[in-house]
Amino acid sequence: MPQGKILIAQGGGPTAVINQSLVGAVLEARGQAGVERVYGARHGVRGIVNEDFLDLTRESRKSLERVAATPCSALGSTRDKPDLQYCRDIFRVLKAHGIGTFFYIGGNDSSDTLLILSDEARKTRYPLRCIHIPKTIDNDLMVNDHTPGYPSAARFVAQAFAGTDLDNQALPGVYVGVVMGRHAGFLTAAAALARRSPDDGPHLIYLPERRFEMKAFLRDVKATYDRLGRCVIAVSEGVHDRSGTPIAVRLAKAVEKDAHGNVQLSGTGALADALTGAIKAGTSIKRVRGDTFGYLQRSFLGCVSEVDRREAREVGIKAAQYARTAGRDGSVTLHRVGDYAVAYKLSPLKAVAGKTKVMADAFIAKSGHDVTAAFLAYARPLVGPLPAVERLGPENAVKKILGKKK
Amino acid sequence: MPQGKILIAQGGGPTAVINQSLVGAVLEARGQAGVERVYGARHGVRGIVNEDFLDLTRESRKSLERVAATPCSALGSTRDKPDLQYCRDIFRVLKAHGIGTFFYIGGNDSSDTLLILSDEARKTRYPLRCIHIPKTIDNDLMVNDHTPGYPSAARFVAQAFAGTDLDNQALPGVYVGVVMGRHAGFLTAAAALARRSPDDGPHLIYLPERRFEMKAFLRDVKATYDRLGRCVIAVSEGVHDRSGTPIAVRLAKAVEKDAHGNVQLSGTGALADALTGAIKAGTSIKRVRGDTFGYLQRSFLGCVSEVDRREAREVGIKAAQYARTAGRDGSVTLHRVGDYAVAYKLSPLKAVAGKTKVMADAFIAKSGHDVTAAFLAYARPLVGPLPAVERLGPENAVKKILGKKK
Repeated sequence: MPQGKILIAQGGGPTAVINQSLVGAVLEARGQAGVERVYGARHGVRGIVNEDFLDLTRESRKSLERVAATPCSALGSTRDKPDLQYCRDIFRVLKAHGIGTFFYIGGNDSSDTLLILSDEARKTRYPLRCIHIPKTIDNDLMVNDHTPGYPSAARFVAQAFAGTDLDNQALPGVYVGVVMGRHAGFLTAAAALARRSPDDGPHLIYLPERRFEMKAFLRDVKATYDRLGRCVIAVSEGVHDRSGTPIAVRLAKAVEKDAHGNVQLSGTGALADALTGAIKAGTSIKRVRGDTFGYLQRSFLGCVSEVDRREAREVGIKAAQYARTAGRDGSVTLHRVGDYAVAYKLSPLKAVAGKTKVMADAFIAKSGHDVTAAFLAYARPLVGPLPAVERLGPENAVKKILGKKK
Repeated sequence: MPQGKILIAQGGGPTAVINQSLVGAVLEARGQAGVERVYGARHGVRGIVNEDFLDLTRESRKSLERVAATPCSALGSTRDKPDLQYCRDIFRVLKAHGIGTFFYIGGNDSSDTLLILSDEARKTRYPLRCIHIPKTIDNDLMVNDHTPGYPSAARFVAQAFAGTDLDNQALPGVYVGVVMGRHAGFLTAAAALARRSPDDGPHLIYLPERRFEMKAFLRDVKATYDRLGRCVIAVSEGVHDRSGTPIAVRLAKAVEKDAHGNVQLSGTGALADALTGAIKAGTSIKRVRGDTFGYLQRSFLGCVSEVDRREAREVGIKAAQYARTAGRDGSVTLHRVGDYAVAYKLSPLKAVAGKTKVMADAFIAKSGHDVTAAFLAYARPLVGPLPAVERLGPENAVKKILGKKK
């Protein structure tokens, strides 16, 4: 079936492997009979309206492979969410350029955008094939076992907590690390992969799937500190109170929202500072430190999960194959088969668009501030083995001679 | 010369390679004739007073090599600064255990501690050989060309800015990254290693060696944003105003100090939040984000400079050799010879202790908000090549048909 010109774009927050999906789709499509050109839109749907296209058919395979290995959206991204007029502007441009297939790489906001476009195309009888390619570090897409981008970000979070926990062993105190994740705690939960010994941190993990109560939080921190002389805590930026209001929002002075109505939680250290302040005020613990992992967790150069790299590439390739053979719009979804292998499907856009998957109860410990073995079994094959670490154990302690204890 | 028992300890903030120095010294000392035992004190000088020793002679070489490859102080660290009574307590313990040589791995505060101990030992005729092994991510030790720990932390900062700059290219706006460094800007300056293309960030770099003026800062940010449509900024946590007061302290409500009188600058996002707030208030730019790299930059698991790993090991080995042959106390110092090789010396403790080296004027651009080619030439061999990245250039732009510009 002749496809003419294909357009691809990237939406939402960048990931370490989103360019693998881009290059997978572009190279696969370029090899298909009937494909005339593969264009890339700069900065998502905004680039379509602006006719800001790159002809990716003219990029060498070698150059594209280097782009694939580079983190963050090489085409640029956007937070724009098209309304009806925006959609009409898009169709006008697509028509002018003779584009019949559109791949949009992104998360649930981007799949929602694609659903609107797909519906409008059908209503206005514009012949457009729409395929969503999944991507999000939040791991919150419905239908999918997990989402490309998550395993690499999870690896960053695990390596960060493995390191800061060693730091906290060296200079004991309380350490709070705030991790991205508005509604879903998957990324914060990955902090648990940093643990090996029973007393390794993070000792407490707070997820947006459970209500955050300051009183219980302070009690848990104090109990851990009393037991171990230190306490390492992973907190999701999306933790919220009884009313559903994020703790970060309750504490922030001004609230910024994007076009999708999402409140800005990242790019500020407010939550970490508020929590460390509360711990200092509510306990007698003196050394209390907080970090917000911020944009590093999705863009840090040189932290990629091998499984993620491979799967991100594959969902791009599958998108190009489905566009040619499936005869319908949809979202490429990723399904776990066995331990560990994956299968890919083309699922209806409606099943994915604008919805948010959160962590299953089976992944969250009864205490509400830890993960279960089931979560570790779920996440470990995605993240892969971490660099090995070794502690000096107490078995070679020297017998005290003076026996004084300061 | 018989050395009897040797004691080693780690002080100050952990680094990615401090355990290489520990294991270098331990293995070298263990192989020396006359060395009876090598003890490690837990948590620096505090572990000495508490007689909290591990017998490192009993650790297998294999186990020690795994410890060497692990970031952060395996023995634990401390911020304690001994006074006279503390010194006497230390000598009492050293005497009881028959310890004649003390290696202290640390920065300028730790070398200062060692100088006090060395002086007190001489005054009280306690026969103690004191050797300081250099370590600090701040790179601010006198006499040294650079300090073990700095190259790996600099590598983290460069990889972080390479990634966040790509992120900022994808979703343009202003990004502020706050980097550790109280008085010396070396670590913040390493952000410049992230740049390849002329328009790559960081576009502005603010160092504690130059006065920080909010008005000029806002003007520079606006000018960059007007030119590129985005602006990535690296700021040292230690930037200060006309009076020498750190901007972070001027803005913070409560100020925490350690035993060395140092104000707490890390472990809080206050500076980044204050700067992004000032940019939002002082310009019309909407998307302004800030991250504080915090403890990740000194402890992140899996980000080590190869040169750093090698040199950190070597200063440990040299310390054990000097203890045997030099006949005097001192600090192992690192000197650049050629491009790029290093030589090691034993320098007087007085030359290093308690002093702070800052960036030479030749490393700072005339504008005051960038580094020079001389700094890049200095830092590049330490950090090593970064993972390759590739951008999609404008050369394959598709000709507009409608020509509408939104």
